[in-house]
Amino acid sequence: MALLNTRIVLASRPHGEPTEANFRVEEAEVPTPGPGEILVRNLWLSLDPYMRGRMNDRKSYAAPQPLDEVMIGATVGEVLTSNHPKFTKGDVVLAGLGWQLFGVSDGKGVRKVDPSLPLSVYLGAAGMPGVTAHIGLLEFGKPKAGDTVVVSAASGAVGSVVGQLARRRGARAVGIAGGPAKCRYVEQELGFDACVDYKAADFTAALARAVPNGVDVYFDNVGGPVLDAVLGHVNAFARIPLCGVVSQYSATEPYGVKNYAALLTNRVALQGFIVSEHPALWPAALAELTDLVKRGELRYSESIAEGLASAPRAFIGMLRGENFGKQLVKLA
Amino acid sequence: MALLNTRIVLASRPHGEPTEANFRVEEAEVPTPGPGEILVRNLWLSLDPYMRGRMNDRKSYAAPQPLDEVMIGATVGEVLTSNHPKFTKGDVVLAGLGWQLFGVSDGKGVRKVDPSLPLSVYLGAAGMPGVTAHIGLLEFGKPKAGDTVVVSAASGAVGSVVGQLARRRGARAVGIAGGPAKCRYVEQELGFDACVDYKAADFTAALARAVPNGVDVYFDNVGGPVLDAVLGHVNAFARIPLCGVVSQYSATEPYGVKNYAALLTNRVALQGFIVSEHPALWPAALAELTDLVKRGELRYSESIAEGLASAPRAFIGMLRGENFGKQLVKLA
Repeated sequence: MALLNTRIVLASRPHGEPTEANFRVEEAEVPTPGPGEILVRNLWLSLDPYMRGRMNDRKSYAAPQPLDEVMIGATVGEVLTSNHPKFTKGDVVLAGLGWQLFGVSDGKGVRKVDPSLPLSVYLGAAGMPGVTAHIGLLEFGKPKAGDTVVVSAASGAVGSVVGQLARRRGARAVGIAGGPAKCRYVEQELGFDACVDYKAADFTAALARAVPNGVDVYFDNVGGPVLDAVLGHVNAFARIPLCGVVSQYSATEPYGVKNYAALLTNRVALQGFIVSEHPALWPAALAELTDLVKRGELRYSESIAEGLASAPRAFIGMLRGENFGKQLVKLA
Repeated sequence: MALLNTRIVLASRPHGEPTEANFRVEEAEVPTPGPGEILVRNLWLSLDPYMRGRMNDRKSYAAPQPLDEVMIGATVGEVLTSNHPKFTKGDVVLAGLGWQLFGVSDGKGVRKVDPSLPLSVYLGAAGMPGVTAHIGLLEFGKPKAGDTVVVSAASGAVGSVVGQLARRRGARAVGIAGGPAKCRYVEQELGFDACVDYKAADFTAALARAVPNGVDVYFDNVGGPVLDAVLGHVNAFARIPLCGVVSQYSATEPYGVKNYAALLTNRVALQGFIVSEHPALWPAALAELTDLVKRGELRYSESIAEGLASAPRAFIGMLRGENFGKQLVKLA
């Protein structure tokens, strides 16, 4: 029986915001795993902002996504065939098989997961986004009890975990998110102390009210004008883990950060980081996050697009902030 | 004999570039030292960019310079009268007695210096500016042999020391300075590997040629467009000790830093710092700098204004980059 694989490749590089025309859906035969390989049916695909950076053909910390090849992406799937001693048919695995229904892997970077948890959590709160929040906040943000921790994209996969971990460390957690619905969710469901709507006309005044004691840690996912606004409130010796600049990924003209001098005036430590470069910190982070999810003490929400064909539209929407929590594509 | 003291006070706060009208020269009686105090005749006054920040009435790491009071400033002088057990008439001391010919002190923060060296060096290479270079470069820049270290305001009191210390640690030192005369001095007298003129039309191209292997450490004294240009060349895991934003001190509209995303892409560690907050690091820094000066292995130059009345004009010129090396006022 020849199964048919559906896959999405990068057809062209976007200038500014990506469009659906930058992607192409292809049909192909399902590959046959060779010796030492496994064949996986992908169940969930993760969509993440970093993918936008890879679509550009310019120097960055990772090689660009090649044209006409399957878009990169983390997946959770089920092993259909295994020629690999560590995997068995039926295993559920976290892998990076990209935007396609089936994939073959030699097992490198593939990890079996506990199928008793909702599988999508391994792409979110108990996966790379959660670990990003954990490492960025604790290793570079170094929150102390009583500190004010601000995080942008607060309802997203990373930001939602940042604020909850900050509160567990005794800090005041203030989120920044787009629109009243997201802000209500951040305050009422995620339990942040406050959330400020960056799209609201009174954003800067509302931010000032939300951080009466200034900002000790700013976990930045967005850059741009929101960063500028937060810089106006940083305390002496504040820490800024720099995790993303999602406001700039599709910008054709970069935003100029005006409150930059506050980094000197307040002796701020700013640190750009990439979660994959801190492998030694992953096990402890994953252990804590998985444990919290199991005990129901880490809240998260998901935006689920149905079917592989919906991935481009969902991805474009996510870059615009149209998702609500972790953006996923349900493949099966 | 009632000696007459001349002093310069802040008459008004500048908007943008300071003018001489922001200062007022006053005559007053020389104060009489009380119990536990010393009277000092100031011989040298240091002019430093940080003073511009103090002239503003806004939140910063230090209180603003009060109106109608003697302008702050480091001084080297001779003890005329001592009611303090640790000082004797004739001692030469480093103090912070400000823009005036005579000053009284309770001895706090006053340090006797070796009068066999040129006294002005305690305000420059073997003083606060030298220690700023030492701590910023070594503590926060962490240069390794083979690294490329870039420093702005390279012919100045701080920058000139940064590059020379970087070379002593086996790094490639690249200066940025204003005009061909300063650049020649930086390359030929200070021994930097290269110097780039930020005022030249081909600045960005010349910078690119000067850092063929990218930038590992950028010791930033200026901020603004020069920072943006350097950010275009930072290597992965680069360090940016943020020491000054002299290009912005008098700016009425702050410059927007556009290449900010490079801090994330290259996982840069940026650290604003104030030298006075690291007292534990001063003794070793001063010991090394003083030793290098004594052995003639640390080059520096000085711009010397004659007489207290010339201080405002010299200060304004320094902010425009008209000085060449450490800006001093010779008082006696």
